[in-house]
Amino acid sequence: MRKVAILGIGQTTVDEHWDKSLKELAGEAGLLALADANREYVQSIFIGNMLSGALSKQDNISTLISDWLDLQGSESVKVEAACGSGAAALRNGLIAIASGEVDSALVIGVEKMTESLPVETTEALATAADADYEATQGLSFVALNALIMQRYLYTYGWKHTDFAQFSINAHSNALHNPFARLHMAITEEEYIHARMIAAPINLLDASPIGDGAAAVLLVPAESLKHPSGTYVTILGSASSTDTISVHNRNDPLWLRAAEISAKKAYHQAGVNPDDIDFFELHDAFSVMSALSLEACGFTEKGQAPRLAIEGEIRPSGKIPITTRGGLKARGHPVGATGIYQIVEATQQLRGEAGLSQISDAKIGMTQNIGGSGATIITHILQKNTV
Amino acid sequence: MRKVAILGIGQTTVDEHWDKSLKELAGEAGLLALADANREYVQSIFIGNMLSGALSKQDNISTLISDWLDLQGSESVKVEAACGSGAAALRNGLIAIASGEVDSALVIGVEKMTESLPVETTEALATAADADYEATQGLSFVALNALIMQRYLYTYGWKHTDFAQFSINAHSNALHNPFARLHMAITEEEYIHARMIAAPINLLDASPIGDGAAAVLLVPAESLKHPSGTYVTILGSASSTDTISVHNRNDPLWLRAAEISAKKAYHQAGVNPDDIDFFELHDAFSVMSALSLEACGFTEKGQAPRLAIEGEIRPSGKIPITTRGGLKARGHPVGATGIYQIVEATQQLRGEAGLSQISDAKIGMTQNIGGSGATIITHILQKNTV
Repeated sequence: MRKVAILGIGQTTVDEHWDKSLKELAGEAGLLALADANREYVQSIFIGNMLSGALSKQDNISTLISDWLDLQGSESVKVEAACGSGAAALRNGLIAIASGEVDSALVIGVEKMTESLPVETTEALATAADADYEATQGLSFVALNALIMQRYLYTYGWKHTDFAQFSINAHSNALHNPFARLHMAITEEEYIHARMIAAPINLLDASPIGDGAAAVLLVPAESLKHPSGTYVTILGSASSTDTISVHNRNDPLWLRAAEISAKKAYHQAGVNPDDIDFFELHDAFSVMSALSLEACGFTEKGQAPRLAIEGEIRPSGKIPITTRGGLKARGHPVGATGIYQIVEATQQLRGEAGLSQISDAKIGMTQNIGGSGATIITHILQKNTV
Repeated sequence: MRKVAILGIGQTTVDEHWDKSLKELAGEAGLLALADANREYVQSIFIGNMLSGALSKQDNISTLISDWLDLQGSESVKVEAACGSGAAALRNGLIAIASGEVDSALVIGVEKMTESLPVETTEALATAADADYEATQGLSFVALNALIMQRYLYTYGWKHTDFAQFSINAHSNALHNPFARLHMAITEEEYIHARMIAAPINLLDASPIGDGAAAVLLVPAESLKHPSGTYVTILGSASSTDTISVHNRNDPLWLRAAEISAKKAYHQAGVNPDDIDFFELHDAFSVMSALSLEACGFTEKGQAPRLAIEGEIRPSGKIPITTRGGLKARGHPVGATGIYQIVEATQQLRGEAGLSQISDAKIGMTQNIGGSGATIITHILQKNTV
């Protein structure tokens, strides 16, 4: 298979974009990625999106967007894996390039969530859980994660306060990301006293939704015959599933799909957790940061809060996470999130992350989750210098 | 790239399956395909589906289905391109195998449409059109196709009656397909006097929706080291887009995406229209049969009704179409249709089509359409005899 390079990146701010539709957001990010790559044409377009049918009454958005980009005649498809749709689209675009079937792929993650009523958005998000055995029992997504966090506190003996650093770090990092939804530092005091949503999850444990789009242009690395300067390649890509319902897992505190996909990606890339310079993980809720760090081998089971408390997840720590704000503060436009992670990792590896820059970042990892750990997709990216 | 073989096929009847949910339908077809291939395990699952979120309040169905099949730990993703979702999923599974990334892919098309209110289903189907410029103007899918058919009659001077043979042929062929939704022969008299839906489209111009699932198991052809008997390989696969809105096309009677994808597939397969022994086309409405035959080079522009009137689309004709009933009589469970076409083409090439068998069929073509010609995916399949 051919090695794949990320030639261009683009993103919109994550916000309430009342003036922009789904296709306008996706188009903006797509055109920015094309401009960044100095290209005008692509052979194929892969769209990561979850909720266009439910919230914008629009399906077939891959063709809508390729039409909007004036790329009629290209190949185009939408890929959906709930909140993991972005990385799932990336992986399909990556395989299409690696196979030799296409020579360029524009992968866009896009979501439009704030124009519908909050109850509609919450109901639409619940469609990522099992409709028969979770959603219809009244389990919203925050409720599912609250049960997981409660179990984590009970099993490992941590206090809710011990998760504060996950949110504090994310908010701190987002201060330097102009595309983030929330630009406000938070304190431990604020974290402790934030409004409760579903105990023990409070407002500062949860990521905000938003409208947004992010895009990357993929090409075969071999096509960069005279690569000038720094470019980023994808060293590892893997996807795995678990049971869709949390209650069907032997251990609800172990993200088996994260372990499987991370191990596959490490193997492909020829690296281990010690080689990862930063990790853009899927912190939809603070407890998910802990579970991801543990399942991917960055710390022992039940020990992730210690990593956070000791400052090891901060930009200067052993394993910096959510370096540009993560889902918690950059925001979580669900189907777009996986591509925001790739764009941000590319910025870090190019040395374009400004005041969020992780010094000497050479290898970065991203992980995007669909459902409550049901579908997990891991990518490992590398900086290449000519 | 590696050549890809279809090792197993499975399908449910197209019907009102009140006793089966989305995952049960998909699971049934998937297990049948695995049993047909004599396999118990697959590395990856690709689901073609359009409406699970809207009509079953269930997203992330790829993981739901892999879980239901007890294949947790496998890779799984949903691919959506409106009514072209089935073939789009097939193409992504095909590329994953061809690339060497996976060695087995179960591709399942599934749709559950009859449990919701008819108005909900009609509204959900309209999300395949442009939400801003078509759907919100009151254009349902049948209305869009009615405008196209009216234009066809006006431009080329045919009468509505001249389309009768497309529907008569489809219904006649479905009589011998136990999985078809409609088992009733129709006459020209019945066609002419059928109830009007959206002039000039009447009930016998339109395909019925339905619940159903179809599945194929893909493997690298090279893995069939001791292939016994007959097996089917995929010679050509291509996908193209056009404008999403019909009114934006220079010629609303020309399926540009069909022309592009068919020409690419012919080129890959090293064949031309004369080599195609049968063609499973996307006859959602009778006029679409005509447009597909013309765009794919089986007849001149505006001449497809002549092909039908002269009997050339019948099983004994020059280019047999909808050999097992097509969308018109097998039924059109939208996201599943593209895989039903592949299953039926495989039956023909294996010589397992019973009384619908096309004699000496060696090369078959399938074409699946998303939107009103917006996304068109063409596959060419070949019979291999050891």
